[in-house]
Amino acid sequence: MLQITKELDQIVQNIVPLDRTWIEKASARTAQLIMPHRALGMLHDIAERLCAIGQTLSPVITSRAVLIMAGDHGVVEEGVSAYPQEVTGAMVTAFLNGGAGINAICRQINAHVKVVDMGVKADLQELLPQHQEILSICKIAQGTDNFVHGPAMSLQAAGQAVLTGFQQATQAFEAGADILVTGDMGIGNTTPSAAIGRVLTGTSLTDMVGPGTGIDPNTLRHKMQVVDRAIAHNQPNPLNGLDVLAKVGGFEIGGLAGCILAAAFHRKPVVVDGFISTASLLIAHRLCPHVCDYVFAGHCSEEPGHRFMLEFLQLPPILHLNMRLGEGTGAALALSIMDAAVRVFKEVFTFEEAGVAGKKEE
Amino acid sequence: MLQITKELDQIVQNIVPLDRTWIEKASARTAQLIMPHRALGMLHDIAERLCAIGQTLSPVITSRAVLIMAGDHGVVEEGVSAYPQEVTGAMVTAFLNGGAGINAICRQINAHVKVVDMGVKADLQELLPQHQEILSICKIAQGTDNFVHGPAMSLQAAGQAVLTGFQQATQAFEAGADILVTGDMGIGNTTPSAAIGRVLTGTSLTDMVGPGTGIDPNTLRHKMQVVDRAIAHNQPNPLNGLDVLAKVGGFEIGGLAGCILAAAFHRKPVVVDGFISTASLLIAHRLCPHVCDYVFAGHCSEEPGHRFMLEFLQLPPILHLNMRLGEGTGAALALSIMDAAVRVFKEVFTFEEAGVAGKKEE
Repeated sequence: MLQITKELDQIVQNIVPLDRTWIEKASARTAQLIMPHRALGMLHDIAERLCAIGQTLSPVITSRAVLIMAGDHGVVEEGVSAYPQEVTGAMVTAFLNGGAGINAICRQINAHVKVVDMGVKADLQELLPQHQEILSICKIAQGTDNFVHGPAMSLQAAGQAVLTGFQQATQAFEAGADILVTGDMGIGNTTPSAAIGRVLTGTSLTDMVGPGTGIDPNTLRHKMQVVDRAIAHNQPNPLNGLDVLAKVGGFEIGGLAGCILAAAFHRKPVVVDGFISTASLLIAHRLCPHVCDYVFAGHCSEEPGHRFMLEFLQLPPILHLNMRLGEGTGAALALSIMDAAVRVFKEVFTFEEAGVAGKKEE
Repeated sequence: MLQITKELDQIVQNIVPLDRTWIEKASARTAQLIMPHRALGMLHDIAERLCAIGQTLSPVITSRAVLIMAGDHGVVEEGVSAYPQEVTGAMVTAFLNGGAGINAICRQINAHVKVVDMGVKADLQELLPQHQEILSICKIAQGTDNFVHGPAMSLQAAGQAVLTGFQQATQAFEAGADILVTGDMGIGNTTPSAAIGRVLTGTSLTDMVGPGTGIDPNTLRHKMQVVDRAIAHNQPNPLNGLDVLAKVGGFEIGGLAGCILAAAFHRKPVVVDGFISTASLLIAHRLCPHVCDYVFAGHCSEEPGHRFMLEFLQLPPILHLNMRLGEGTGAALALSIMDAAVRVFKEVFTFEEAGVAGKKEE
């Protein structure tokens, strides 16, 4: 455990906040583009932050890696999900075969999907020979423990999950990725995410616990009680991200927290998906608040608690499409908007280049 | 005039509402995709409406035409805009040279831009030889009249503007466009758009008149008075779209109304941009309410009145990015989301194809 803590500390200590002078340099260019001042709204904010992250006025987000972290959850035995647990493994197979929502969107944005088994209950070894390039098996365990009766995992397993995610994302960056997209798969994982959101943002139980994949009102009330009992029983320490992850988190959630730390560590942008990915971000943010400088919120999910997480983190979501699938779909889709932001920043003429008159003197 | 009215009547009479059974057929497919029920939210709605418009379960929006209609406005002599009038012509040149915001976005979505001079004050003839393919000069007049003192144009000119737009869009469809995107350019054109919005939606002056390209609070108050006086003086008839267009509209606004009618007439989808394009849609909708079946609202503009127009028309915007440029930028950008919607609809596996278990029985 000491070794894991030490490694995590080293990562966190090497994450630096953005150099704001790059935002200023970039916004000076934006002001010269032939359009009313900042008339493309959020596109300018996106482009300028990409400039600051890359310390360049010519940001590149061409090579994009989508990392889907998958894991199972002991708490599903409480009956909190609308789908049976074996769907987690079945969906991993669908990702590998190119048949899921995220695959369709990734074909459009020209992104590579990689799936990491962080702790799926099913044994996925037999998938490995055919899909070595896009599947990594890094099982911490075959699903977490039911956190109603005790912690979801040991503190050591939590640290291991974060470090594994860090390593997976680091590999993607070393292989040339300019930008990372986080995705998740795990039947039941809105339950730990809601617990993390409740503990780390202080949002009420009724605001933070939502219908997930689609449960009826009675099951939703039960799910709220489960989250409430889990927090009361485990007493996660809101000042300690790893403690929260261990007590009420999940393996894929820890892995994604590691991915986000890796992006900030390597000074690369990361686009965070919905409720589960943002729960991971809450953990990463608790470990190191600077990470948010490197994070773009891809969308605001229809899962009601997501909005409260994003408001807590002060991250404006790029898309609002009432999506609630996960898998990284909202974040991957946001890349088309980010592509446009980069193009506008680089390609639109300045008033001088175009010989167009600027605003009248007031 | 009789001839123009007759032609418009014939167009309107040939626009039919969507066959809703196609929505049902398409949503039956959506329900089979390997994801929780309608978990990709608006993407499903978009795909299903494209199915119904094309009467197919395999919609295609590959060939996309962006029509930018440009015109000048007599009312700018009242001092309602932050930019001088010559910018309209200068921006047309920028569109032709590929240097504007819309050009950057169109390169990304692989769309063709065409600019139509519906009534720019400057003479653009000299641009024609070099840009025959992408510039049409269809000037109704060199800018509208100042509608504070009388109608912006004659009823005949209004009809001519709509028919010209209809013909331009029809040409695009005949050349193979699967989908149309509306764009506008015209210094001062938020003023007629606000007047149209006020008359046709009944929204208050303070909600409908906004800062446009960026005017100070005093000029904004003045702009509200200008709109108020113009409506009081001209008394546009809210039951007659052509009358509203003639009295407080603009040539490019009429042209875009014609484009929208053309899409509905040819049963093709059209993506409407921001405040000005939606004012055109209000005119088209008054001429023929069925048009909205064929219309997608690309985005919700930062111009405050836009939201009220969209709510009146009951059209949910695809994007919310605080954009307020016009040129078709918001609508063009929305095409990347629509592309993803089509891909998801066509490419994601069904539960049966994937062998994934569905929702538990309740």
